[in-house]
Amino acid sequence: MTDTVVFLLGKLGQLATNRFADRLAPLGLRPRHCGVLELLRVAPMAQLDLARRLDVAASVIVDMLDQLEAVGAVRRTRDVADRRRQLVELTPEGESLCRQAAHLARRVDAELLATLEPGHAASARDVLGRLAVAHGIPTDAAAGPR
Amino acid sequence: MTDTVVFLLGKLGQLATNRFADRLAPLGLRPRHCGVLELLRVAPMAQLDLARRLDVAASVIVDMLDQLEAVGAVRRTRDVADRRRQLVELTPEGESLCRQAAHLARRVDAELLATLEPGHAASARDVLGRLAVAHGIPTDAAAGPR
Repeated sequence: MTDTVVFLLGKLGQLATNRFADRLAPLGLRPRHCGVLELLRVAPMAQLDLARRLDVAASVIVDMLDQLEAVGAVRRTRDVADRRRQLVELTPEGESLCRQAAHLARRVDAELLATLEPGHAASARDVLGRLAVAHGIPTDAAAGPR
Repeated sequence: MTDTVVFLLGKLGQLATNRFADRLAPLGLRPRHCGVLELLRVAPMAQLDLARRLDVAASVIVDMLDQLEAVGAVRRTRDVADRRRQLVELTPEGESLCRQAAHLARRVDAELLATLEPGHAASARDVLGRLAVAHGIPTDAAAGPR
């Protein structure tokens, strides 16, 4: 069973996420926070829209936003167009944390792929991007190699 | 950040593991139980050796063995060579569950790779196996394609 894709993806996903979590910890962030930060970098959003986009329960989003607010990364505001509606927006500190997190992610990537030959590393990025697209995981990988 | 290997592996690993967990649930198994069953299929082992091989805390192994004993998959016995030593062995029911789990894993694999072209599917197996070997994840994938 240890040669199946489901086993390998599970183990490698855990290993990669744990390593990223270790690097993010000093910033007060966890890997799952990054998806929130990336979405908010585009535009402020309502809590429920965030939950829908990230496919998590509303209560999970509330917890994550509390944690992100505690590190000063996000701020809850009123929608100027509809004062009853609450929006979440990234703070300048949040922008900075998002950039730092992206930098750490790329360093973990370099480590994960370090022992592969360049051709295999490129192939890893390519097939993981294809698999993500095939399974509806929102990714920029489809935009092509970088 | 969504085009990084760490993000893609994390998301795909979670998706694959969740799907496998759904399929295993009717058997009373969880994905993490499979590693225990696979090790015991080779030979009976002491609890502590299992914990070491799977790189988990002894308390985690005790919980998993309790769960596996509850579904009749394993049995704790005394080592005939050293009566003070307790061994864990697979039961015939455990053998059967292990085979069924392996079958389900291969079905999930087929689904995960279904939308990829054959060349990309082979490439996915290849690079995941290489990454696992590079990061010390015990896998049969290095034995070659099958």
